[in-house]
Amino acid sequence: MSAQDSSVRATDADLPAEALAELATAIGAEHVVTGDAMNPDVFTDESLHGPGQAPGAVVRPGNTTDVAEIVRIAAAHAIPVTARGSGTGLSGGCVPLPGGIVVSFERMREIVDLDLVGHTVVVEPGITLAELNAALAPHGLVYPVFPGTDAGSIGGTVATNAGGMRAVRYGVTRSHVLGVEAVTGTGEVLQLGGPVVKRSTGYELSQLVVGSEGTLALVTRATLRLSPRLPHVATMLAPFGEIDAIAAVIPRIITSGARPTILEYIDRGTMKGLLRQNDLTLGVAPEVAEKAGAYLVVMVEGRSAEEVGTELELVAEALSEGGAVETYVLLDGQGLRLLEARESAFWMVKAAGADDLIDMVVPRAQIPEYLRRVKTIAAEYGSRVYGCGHAGDGNIHFSVYEKDTERRHALLTAIYQTGQELGGVISGEHGIGTSKKRYYLDLVDPALLSVQQGIKKVFDPAGILNPGKVFDAEE
Amino acid sequence: MSAQDSSVRATDADLPAEALAELATAIGAEHVVTGDAMNPDVFTDESLHGPGQAPGAVVRPGNTTDVAEIVRIAAAHAIPVTARGSGTGLSGGCVPLPGGIVVSFERMREIVDLDLVGHTVVVEPGITLAELNAALAPHGLVYPVFPGTDAGSIGGTVATNAGGMRAVRYGVTRSHVLGVEAVTGTGEVLQLGGPVVKRSTGYELSQLVVGSEGTLALVTRATLRLSPRLPHVATMLAPFGEIDAIAAVIPRIITSGARPTILEYIDRGTMKGLLRQNDLTLGVAPEVAEKAGAYLVVMVEGRSAEEVGTELELVAEALSEGGAVETYVLLDGQGLRLLEARESAFWMVKAAGADDLIDMVVPRAQIPEYLRRVKTIAAEYGSRVYGCGHAGDGNIHFSVYEKDTERRHALLTAIYQTGQELGGVISGEHGIGTSKKRYYLDLVDPALLSVQQGIKKVFDPAGILNPGKVFDAEE
Repeated sequence: MSAQDSSVRATDADLPAEALAELATAIGAEHVVTGDAMNPDVFTDESLHGPGQAPGAVVRPGNTTDVAEIVRIAAAHAIPVTARGSGTGLSGGCVPLPGGIVVSFERMREIVDLDLVGHTVVVEPGITLAELNAALAPHGLVYPVFPGTDAGSIGGTVATNAGGMRAVRYGVTRSHVLGVEAVTGTGEVLQLGGPVVKRSTGYELSQLVVGSEGTLALVTRATLRLSPRLPHVATMLAPFGEIDAIAAVIPRIITSGARPTILEYIDRGTMKGLLRQNDLTLGVAPEVAEKAGAYLVVMVEGRSAEEVGTELELVAEALSEGGAVETYVLLDGQGLRLLEARESAFWMVKAAGADDLIDMVVPRAQIPEYLRRVKTIAAEYGSRVYGCGHAGDGNIHFSVYEKDTERRHALLTAIYQTGQELGGVISGEHGIGTSKKRYYLDLVDPALLSVQQGIKKVFDPAGILNPGKVFDAEE
Repeated sequence: MSAQDSSVRATDADLPAEALAELATAIGAEHVVTGDAMNPDVFTDESLHGPGQAPGAVVRPGNTTDVAEIVRIAAAHAIPVTARGSGTGLSGGCVPLPGGIVVSFERMREIVDLDLVGHTVVVEPGITLAELNAALAPHGLVYPVFPGTDAGSIGGTVATNAGGMRAVRYGVTRSHVLGVEAVTGTGEVLQLGGPVVKRSTGYELSQLVVGSEGTLALVTRATLRLSPRLPHVATMLAPFGEIDAIAAVIPRIITSGARPTILEYIDRGTMKGLLRQNDLTLGVAPEVAEKAGAYLVVMVEGRSAEEVGTELELVAEALSEGGAVETYVLLDGQGLRLLEARESAFWMVKAAGADDLIDMVVPRAQIPEYLRRVKTIAAEYGSRVYGCGHAGDGNIHFSVYEKDTERRHALLTAIYQTGQELGGVISGEHGIGTSKKRYYLDLVDPALLSVQQGIKKVFDPAGILNPGKVFDAEE
């Protein structure tokens, strides 16, 4: 809890006594927490907006039956239900509703089944990425979703379709989710998909639940596809005169035959901040740094040092043909530290008092135009907007420093509009939650919104699952 | 048209004259075809069941506006609408309804946009896989979905989530669909997803439309992700004593570092038929063939002969450690001919009078147990069941020879039940259509069916889009 969270309001509304009694009977009184006994961490996530919200109760199911029971009780009493994993989200998706129930998955963190022939795993939603990967490592396997923090839970990453720096090689969360067990808003337990890597058997509902931010169903188990773990890693750094050249070099790298795990662009200003904050030196000569408008960081992996060497050669050739000012292979420690610094950039901007985050994704070819337009818009508003991002998949992160609320809203609206004109969408990996909801509702086609509201009603006719997140129920 | 199709019935029901007039006005009289002017090819697909069905009319839209107009007219007159690409489906998904409209996409086959930086393409649904790949080849790109025939259309392959032999490396159709433009049952045009490779912005509806077999919306454009084209190819053949060893060698190959494009198992009986039918000799010594209960065919690809060589070494080592009786690198011509023969196995079984096809997918680890159980079940029923399949992803194809309808239904029910018990689903890539509908309805959880019926109603409230395919509308 940071200092600002001390302003969290006490519970606005208690749960009806009858509902509390039913919950205590169903899952045990010790797992139904109310009032001051609630850990205030649960009131918010890591997003930059607001002090959070106390729910009416936090309940801690031990298994799927418990979850179904909780939802049925909630539905009977019209109580909103918000699922919670680790609370590392950035869009307010797991922030509770006043008088609502938070279903905290802290007791449901088991690995239910690990299939070493099929390379799949079935897990409960409360397990974190770090815990899962620690269990997989001895088997030479990895769950290759790395969304900036390995403290994230599987449930949370499934709810937001988390991405991260390695998505360019491995894909995002939905690329790895083969199935989910999920509890709908009526307390029905559905088995969606399963441990098979392909199917043409009815509608693909597991993919619909992925990314639905807890509004369609609570995921109680997920079946995930795993990848072989690649033990050898190397990192290259290439300063470029300007961002256009970086955008142009990406397809060159991809078609070279290399399979980079990370293709990260960092602009000059952000790089300076990262180096200073993390006390890092990368050996970039001053005359090179002088010319560098932006940097591309490339990480490659392989089963052997030889394979990594081949990858590095392919990347170096593409970089050099693509106009890199210089190409550095970072020594192991340096490369990892730079990437860790990049991962932690969010904390840097949070500490620096950033007022908003943007994580639009645009077609890769549109990155330079998007960056140019954002720069122009920021200048028009006189606001500070700094960026870095996943250049391989067009997902650009900006931190926005603009204290004036009205001006900030206008600035963000202009940026989202311009990105959408270029074929982009509002969020590449953070989700809409509440933070981006007003912008999403401004930009979404009403017909498309109406279809989503209809689907929401099919899964959750009473509208109790995380209401008000992403969009509002149909009136 | 094969001989049996001469039994196709004439149109059971004409369209109302008013509807025909409206269609003619909307899209041009020359594109509204009725009665004897209809090409009887349109009455069926390549599935083994039944002679097909004449619709009331075949209409040929020229663009999205036409499609929306057709659907609105159909909705107003409660006329069923069935989308049609190339008609190469295997489950009756595009077979018309009596008195219905077939929307034939033969005029909509353009490449709308090819993005050489983003490696994406936007196409109309009527274009075939062959046409698309011919256009991509000069750019060093490929759309890597190879579902047995390259005559399939993008629209059809999106509707069924087509797979094929190369899915083990590249994934199935849904892995490559970034977005669709789709017309719902009310004639609304929705833009779902788009040319970005990741997003967490509202529900993922493009993936919901993929595999929905024309029951939720008509796809009028698809945005597809492309891969670099790999010019060097080699094929290995490994006889194994029994199928268990093949199932066990797959994870060994995957973790070796090789990235096989094809991992195909062919049983002894099917291999004999393939070699005989195609006049192929593969150089397998008689004493080796004697010991071979099943064969594994492995195709690898690379950007260079060197890369292919490395892949072959990794695969050969894994095969040998995994107990292959022998390991052959097939000379280029031979390997391709064997794979072509495997691709054409369907035509062989169709010509041989097969009565049904099964394409269940089970977890990779369950392949041996599934094969054993199918063998036992076939023996119990005294029916002939032969197989080959995509060993890398657990998708096993059986051809079933059993003339007695009742016994065949009981046999298939038993096989589908046992496969589902092992964690499998009814169709890995063919779809449910009408061919597998009764089995699907027998096995599906009623709660899951009800959710699907609810979703169908959201997209298609009047129930006019391909009614009766996959499942029936809610009563």
